[in-house]
Amino acid sequence: MHQLHKHISQRIELTEAEFESIYKIFHEVNFSRRHLLIGPGQTVLHQYFVLKGCLRTYMIDQSGKEHTVQFAVENWWTSDYIAYYTGENSILYVECIEDCQLLQVKREDLMNLFKQAPKVESFFRGQLESAFVAFQKRILSNLYMSAEERYRVFISSYPNIEQRVKNYQIASYLGITPERLSRLRSQRIR
Amino acid sequence: MHQLHKHISQRIELTEAEFESIYKIFHEVNFSRRHLLIGPGQTVLHQYFVLKGCLRTYMIDQSGKEHTVQFAVENWWTSDYIAYYTGENSILYVECIEDCQLLQVKREDLMNLFKQAPKVESFFRGQLESAFVAFQKRILSNLYMSAEERYRVFISSYPNIEQRVKNYQIASYLGITPERLSRLRSQRIR
Repeated sequence: MHQLHKHISQRIELTEAEFESIYKIFHEVNFSRRHLLIGPGQTVLHQYFVLKGCLRTYMIDQSGKEHTVQFAVENWWTSDYIAYYTGENSILYVECIEDCQLLQVKREDLMNLFKQAPKVESFFRGQLESAFVAFQKRILSNLYMSAEERYRVFISSYPNIEQRVKNYQIASYLGITPERLSRLRSQRIR
Repeated sequence: MHQLHKHISQRIELTEAEFESIYKIFHEVNFSRRHLLIGPGQTVLHQYFVLKGCLRTYMIDQSGKEHTVQFAVENWWTSDYIAYYTGENSILYVECIEDCQLLQVKREDLMNLFKQAPKVESFFRGQLESAFVAFQKRILSNLYMSAEERYRVFISSYPNIEQRVKNYQIASYLGITPERLSRLRSQRIR
């Protein structure tokens, strides 16, 4: 829980009692590489904080093509947020692409905690603002940035991720072909 | 403020004192049709609740093409949320496409109010969850829904909007050409 403590403390000051109430509802779970944490059609009760490992959230379109929505590495949060917030069935895949050590929390437990500890709600409002901004930036950047600029932003958002995920997964995040990604990389090296 | 009261009460129960503290920081503003509420490169201090009228949020890409991000009608919220949440300069246009009567609130005032009235923060966390879900659904639906299904969802999300906005604006929201939109409409009528 030390890592979660550090992560939360970067944004907000909580008392030890508030931290204790957080620890009570977060539970460590461990999954092997290739484990499918969430698949389409499921009920999603939890969101996850990544202690160690890497996960990929993706969707498969009507033609069978994969679209990567998000990668989550250490200190990131992940879930199928549409399903998590609305109670609707999931439409996304969230897959462990490395062995993963996660902290999971149930939405219901968080909602109850918010009533007792409003500062905890403040933290999660802030986390949600960041997630919303990140997602909207990512989508809009497809409109106003070149593929090269998007690749540069990706590298700075996820340092060292290139060694951890497959090329086709990065390409499907950037919305380009793997061949285009190779060309972008070789241009950078030159 | 009665309309805002009703809107908030649908989601959360607040005391009269809490409502009074909300009213103090919301201010009515009126703009004519074609007024540009937000333009690229600006600092965005406010978000807006629509009492009456219709606004369109859009971006212009590198090739000069318009992409509609959102329409806002009565009881919707709008802003350039990336700029509003981060303090970065705006990248979007938010334009009144009818005469508009809005309630504006400054982020700084809301943040101060959250400290005194945590239930108000709960409301805005919920509002943000809905906005995040709506935006993510809209983007992902481009991957798993046909243009016809997207048009159907659009019509049910924004009832009666077709009389209020231009065809090319709806087409740019759906990511299709105006000709394609005409064909979809004539298929529905038949």
